[in-house]
Amino acid sequence: MTLEELRKQIDDVDRQLVDLLSQRARTVLAIGRLKAVASLPVYEPVREKAVYAQVREANQGPLPDIEITRIFERIIDVMRSIEMHDAITEKNARAVEPGHGTGAEAPETGNEK
Amino acid sequence: MTLEELRKQIDDVDRQLVDLLSQRARTVLAIGRLKAVASLPVYEPVREKAVYAQVREANQGPLPDIEITRIFERIIDVMRSIEMHDAITEKNARAVEPGHGTGAEAPETGNEK
Repeated sequence: MTLEELRKQIDDVDRQLVDLLSQRARTVLAIGRLKAVASLPVYEPVREKAVYAQVREANQGPLPDIEITRIFERIIDVMRSIEMHDAITEKNARAVEPGHGTGAEAPETGNEK
Repeated sequence: MTLEELRKQIDDVDRQLVDLLSQRARTVLAIGRLKAVASLPVYEPVREKAVYAQVREANQGPLPDIEITRIFERIIDVMRSIEMHDAITEKNARAVEPGHGTGAEAPETGNEK
């Protein structure tokens, strides 16, 4: 294969990686909202260890385990950051708009029957 | 969906990510060997910029562009590291075993006709 063909392969893999990372982010946000309802912390070291262990088990090379772990450290760091950001945004939204997301009626509609 | 079901989704995505990253690494190693033959450098800033641009174009959220870029910075850093390591290993192998990978005959067989 030529350099150009190999680079097209990389570009194709990268687009699939973007799709999968977006999918992972959506699931992480869903988990964050469940955890907020259940008052569970964003950072769960036991769960993160399980994720790394699974990644190393799935790894068949050619990347050494330490290098694939370095990539997942960044992925998990980014995911934790968007989960925390979303939790803060949600909390502020509830504080600013009473009734938002709590199932209670908002005052401006509650006054007009 | 329950927390457990969502985590199973994440685990499934992570296994697919490991597969894609392994595939990317294999292609990067193939590119590295082509570049070695053509005496091209491992680090090519113009190509790396094109990779980041393509990633941001493919990104539909929910990850902000800056966060998906942070993940790809680590991916590219790891890939460059294995490409360099492979180049050094290949070079050393050629130095230790004359004729290895160069198409030339090794002396111990070349002396016996």
